[in-house]
Amino acid sequence: MAKTKVGVLGATGSVGQRFILLLKDHPTLELVALGASSRSAGKKYSEAVNWQQTTLLPDEAADITVSPCDPSYFTDCKVVFSGLDADVAGDVEKAFAEAGLAVISNAKNYRRDPHVPLVVPLVNTDHLSILKSRKTPGFIVCNSNCSTAGLVVPLKALSALGPIDAVSVTTMQALSGAGFSPGVPSMAILDNVIPFIGGEEEKMEYETRKILGSVSADGTTIADIPASDIKVSAQCNRVAVTDGHLECVSMRFAHRPPPTLEQVKEALRTYECAPQSAGCPSAPKHAIHLLEQPDRPQPRLDRDRDAGYGVSVGRVREDPLLDYKFVVLSHNTVIGAAGSGILIAEYLITQNVI
Amino acid sequence: MAKTKVGVLGATGSVGQRFILLLKDHPTLELVALGASSRSAGKKYSEAVNWQQTTLLPDEAADITVSPCDPSYFTDCKVVFSGLDADVAGDVEKAFAEAGLAVISNAKNYRRDPHVPLVVPLVNTDHLSILKSRKTPGFIVCNSNCSTAGLVVPLKALSALGPIDAVSVTTMQALSGAGFSPGVPSMAILDNVIPFIGGEEEKMEYETRKILGSVSADGTTIADIPASDIKVSAQCNRVAVTDGHLECVSMRFAHRPPPTLEQVKEALRTYECAPQSAGCPSAPKHAIHLLEQPDRPQPRLDRDRDAGYGVSVGRVREDPLLDYKFVVLSHNTVIGAAGSGILIAEYLITQNVI
Amino acid sequence: MAKTKVGVLGATGSVGQRFILLLKDHPTLELVALGASSRSAGKKYSEAVNWQQTTLLPDEAADITVSPCDPSYFTDCKVVFSGLDADVAGDVEKAFAEAGLAVISNAKNYRRDPHVPLVVPLVNTDHLSILKSRKTPGFIVCNSNCSTAGLVVPLKALSALGPIDAVSVTTMQALSGAGFSPGVPSMAILDNVIPFIGGEEEKMEYETRKILGSVSADGTTIADIPASDIKVSAQCNRVAVTDGHLECVSMRFAHRPPPTLEQVKEALRTYECAPQSAGCPSAPKHAIHLLEQPDRPQPRLDRDRDAGYGVSVGRVREDPLLDYKFVVLSHNTVIGAAGSGILIAEYLITQNVI
Amino acid sequence: MAKTKVGVLGATGSVGQRFILLLKDHPTLELVALGASSRSAGKKYSEAVNWQQTTLLPDEAADITVSPCDPSYFTDCKVVFSGLDADVAGDVEKAFAEAGLAVISNAKNYRRDPHVPLVVPLVNTDHLSILKSRKTPGFIVCNSNCSTAGLVVPLKALSALGPIDAVSVTTMQALSGAGFSPGVPSMAILDNVIPFIGGEEEKMEYETRKILGSVSADGTTIADIPASDIKVSAQCNRVAVTDGHLECVSMRFAHRPPPTLEQVKEALRTYECAPQSAGCPSAPKHAIHLLEQPDRPQPRLDRDRDAGYGVSVGRVREDPLLDYKFVVLSHNTVIGAAGSGILIAEYLITQNVI
Repeated sequence: MAKTKVGVLGATGSVGQRFILLLKDHPTLELVALGASSRSAGKKYSEAVNWQQTTLLPDEAADITVSPCDPSYFTDCKVVFSGLDADVAGDVEKAFAEAGLAVISNAKNYRRDPHVPLVVPLVNTDHLSILKSRKTPGFIVCNSNCSTAGLVVPLKALSALGPIDAVSVTTMQALSGAGFSPGVPSMAILDNVIPFIGGEEEKMEYETRKILGSVSADGTTIADIPASDIKVSAQCNRVAVTDGHLECVSMRFAHRPPPTLEQVKEALRTYECAPQSAGCPSAPKHAIHLLEQPDRPQPRLDRDRDAGYGVSVGRVREDPLLDYKFVVLSHNTVIGAAGSGILIAEYLITQNVI
Repeated sequence: MAKTKVGVLGATGSVGQRFILLLKDHPTLELVALGASSRSAGKKYSEAVNWQQTTLLPDEAADITVSPCDPSYFTDCKVVFSGLDADVAGDVEKAFAEAGLAVISNAKNYRRDPHVPLVVPLVNTDHLSILKSRKTPGFIVCNSNCSTAGLVVPLKALSALGPIDAVSVTTMQALSGAGFSPGVPSMAILDNVIPFIGGEEEKMEYETRKILGSVSADGTTIADIPASDIKVSAQCNRVAVTDGHLECVSMRFAHRPPPTLEQVKEALRTYECAPQSAGCPSAPKHAIHLLEQPDRPQPRLDRDRDAGYGVSVGRVREDPLLDYKFVVLSHNTVIGAAGSGILIAEYLITQNVI
Repeated sequence: MAKTKVGVLGATGSVGQRFILLLKDHPTLELVALGASSRSAGKKYSEAVNWQQTTLLPDEAADITVSPCDPSYFTDCKVVFSGLDADVAGDVEKAFAEAGLAVISNAKNYRRDPHVPLVVPLVNTDHLSILKSRKTPGFIVCNSNCSTAGLVVPLKALSALGPIDAVSVTTMQALSGAGFSPGVPSMAILDNVIPFIGGEEEKMEYETRKILGSVSADGTTIADIPASDIKVSAQCNRVAVTDGHLECVSMRFAHRPPPTLEQVKEALRTYECAPQSAGCPSAPKHAIHLLEQPDRPQPRLDRDRDAGYGVSVGRVREDPLLDYKFVVLSHNTVIGAAGSGILIAEYLITQNVI
Repeated sequence: MAKTKVGVLGATGSVGQRFILLLKDHPTLELVALGASSRSAGKKYSEAVNWQQTTLLPDEAADITVSPCDPSYFTDCKVVFSGLDADVAGDVEKAFAEAGLAVISNAKNYRRDPHVPLVVPLVNTDHLSILKSRKTPGFIVCNSNCSTAGLVVPLKALSALGPIDAVSVTTMQALSGAGFSPGVPSMAILDNVIPFIGGEEEKMEYETRKILGSVSADGTTIADIPASDIKVSAQCNRVAVTDGHLECVSMRFAHRPPPTLEQVKEALRTYECAPQSAGCPSAPKHAIHLLEQPDRPQPRLDRDRDAGYGVSVGRVREDPLLDYKFVVLSHNTVIGAAGSGILIAEYLITQNVI
């Protein structure tokens, strides 16, 4: 079977580099084009990029000549993955969608657009159904902010037990989320925690509600924004960890009495997501790894479970204030960023949308 | 004026070392005796200790011969500060109190005893009044667990605006709280967060309630334990920071409507504690440093304010779930441990209890 | 073809855990027995071990019942890999060799024995020839100290250009070399460097000379100890890195004029080791990765090249004092420890010694 | 006695901030003017600066209005300390010197000028004598590169035992040397070492020779550049430490037999520098702290000895290759940068040059 040809926009940036890594030897997607700023365009990718990954630059990308981010250079592609910064993503992604391509974006620009699905593929692939009502071949799908991606997976699993009323989350986020250079200065984080990430709390509070929301009655938009009744309060911190966002969550169900602790654990343990059933090649074996050790999950030890495509949940216990509390860990540059994009594309292929 | 003679129990341990540092050149307390295990007893302190502080071992301590932890070696002292481990603190501290000494303990053994004041000196020196009803000259006072100390200061300040109903706190705690050697293994914390500290959450949930509680009607105990109606939920994490516990707090007042954001900030900004009014030499200039920068407090930059005797509060803002949220930072080995002990002693002297 | 059955001694320790990881899905070695202290013996491995690796405990090891470290429990094995601590390794390893097994040891006990080959498999597999003269079926082979392993690979490559006279090396060594718990305390290394590792400098200075030495004329021992004329000076430091020892080396050739810089680089670039030619499954593609970027190798970015079985060399340049200086990086728990053991076993199989 | 009025150029940068900290409550120097780029000029300093020190911004600096870096704004000052970047320092410092001020510079621009003393005040204040021959009232003095400052102090002490022939040094340098923002990216240094600092090795190799060199026969220049016969080889690394450069040194004396180990230690232990004898207020009590513990000096534990104005030397021992090896630690932003500038000014005042 022929592979689907894809490109990456913002290819020299840290998210772009991750897309390229995840596309290496991919069974159904084939990387054929790379776009970046005019500073890089025209160079071989291996010369344009300051490669900063712990695995080597894949040969299949090294020799591609970097193009400007203009659809005319991407006519071979059906899909582009965008790792563009928000300051340029708006116009560029729109141009690619209008040119008939499927744009899967990691930028924040269109996340609040009711006509654009905001998708964490372990959670709400059903939102992709609104693409069926589109008038043009091209479209944009957004993946979520990295800290939101980890949170919504266990919440979705728990919502099978009844509606969720309230969520309080405190994050301890990895450095790779801020990019490589300059990113977070080393003097700012060594022997330190920074209790602030600009715009992050607002994103988590908004996006969690949209992702756990539903498609409108006419099937064309994600219903009334914010679409969900959950109250969400987020406190976001940056810690000295390379990869892996850890989040302390407490939550309350809407109905009394709430489910039992055993029901809560069972719902987490048995949760299965659509890309698993659909047989997507990058789908995790377990969307949620429920850990029973008292001191897990931990970023360094657990972030690479299922190659970063699954999330880990531990310390599930009763909460003196709300109903339950637990700890969730997600790999911020895989399921929290580029990996979500890859999995969305894989799922759209299984649904014949691409 | 003659200084009050004091000793330190558990003098070679990490809390003991901190007591010795804080007693250096102290204006009203004079270190005259050091107690440790039989392995160290009989040696000069400079030879018994593996000194691991960033400032040098004070000369006045270096030449003291270490004694066993037996009251007969401490007859010169009116006060002993105990940095003993919980497994030996129970019996030893009791023996010293029965021998007529004031014992100020950093151990957990007597914290839940209704006849023992559990005191964060920036918060509840009024609990010390129950010592007046004691039948014997000696007594025990406990300082709180390190993570509790930071939390209760802003809560006490806010309780002036009306009773507090609910508190949710997630901590990011420093390594020094676990001692020096072995303490937390480096392989466990580099590029990592550990979302678990044994017994810590239970301590925070209990101690916060006792400290914010009140003296019983007859003045002899800290009333009904737990003494306060606040619901407290704690989630405790260890992070790669040497000193300084950072805590993300959200809280709700009991009464509707709650105070305004401006009232909340004003209560924090103007909070004054008893050791300040009493003129204790180590009392901080500001019990609470209210910081207005968006990304503060931070452990490395703010932990040494007022030599670690004050706490810093920042990011005060409304909470979508409870009423308000904020970040608090406290120096875990000063106001969170040895420094609280020193300040309690200073206060007891000003009150003529010692 | 039937796999060779192997066991691991000291299976619950950090080196033992690494052996188990490297044996997972191994094409020619099959793990069938695990030995540990009496505390663990009788338990399933998954219950006996505190697994601290970033990849999950392999299923094939999880269900093995741990034995005492006694040869009678290892009769199925032809080879045992020993990750035992030095305080017990001496007697246990001797007993296994006397029972007819091939013992491949990571401990220091027999490294200075002239009848025991001390082998870095990228360097001196020729020393294994003395095993042919042995009188008994069993034997012991030692792999080197972790910091030595990285150093000798480029030195061996350069010795093809003429004898080496002098080597000065300063190491920056990873934490995993000190084990996991307690290992290096976190308070000792955060925001710090420790310029001392007990016994390490002596090991590097001795082992480098033996490994670069030669077999005695009669083929039965590693000739005159120390066997090589190189003067070696080592300075060893511990830094806050999880895995990967970085070493700054300067060296002088014995003959004047020395080889040119281009000859030096070429010798490093083209170096090939015996396990590569012999087709050992774990042999690296490149024994030496010669890096041309000005700021490489770096532990986090380069330690996993060839799965940790190759070493990386960079910054090759002239030295104002000796002849040349360069930086070498090696994965201390792979080629510097367990991986060397695996590769030695693989090589012995290709030579029909096992 | 009236204090000498001083200004700081580049006042908002990381070196400028350090100058301001060290001038706080200074007994003989009074800060009266601050210069920075046009972006900051005209603002109050407290508003212009992004203060990133662990102690609070001193009140005396907070209210000073920042000036452009033009001598006309500094007519009250006799001395300016320059923390300017090299790309602007050349012209600005020259203009201030021509306007008659004493310029004490932390920049590299004039370090190789034979008419400009390059001074580490613990080592070569005698080089300042060439200022007597100057034709104009103003002048420039440079302090050394941060990594050089630590190295030359023990070398100077040892040169009392006879000329030094060869020095090999490998550094492990702190992050603060690269500035705060962006400085070294956190993703570049967490769990990592960077074996390269641009231009640093060349600076160490050159500056060590000039500083240990001597005044020309006519007293007007630092003699023949390079002025010293020592061969120096440097290898420079960046490690995850906030402050404090650690350096592993090996060295050889020119004459055979070399001094004994005991003579070497005694020379280090008893070394006294000119600012000590001259009674400079910031002079360290010990120019060299000779440490006998096997694992010291360490950056976190020893960098603040004598407030960062002294250096610590440990692990003095024989070297199998050269004569002796040892470890030296210096505080890179105090004696390695701003503190050297302050101490040079203090010394010039005692010599009536200012």
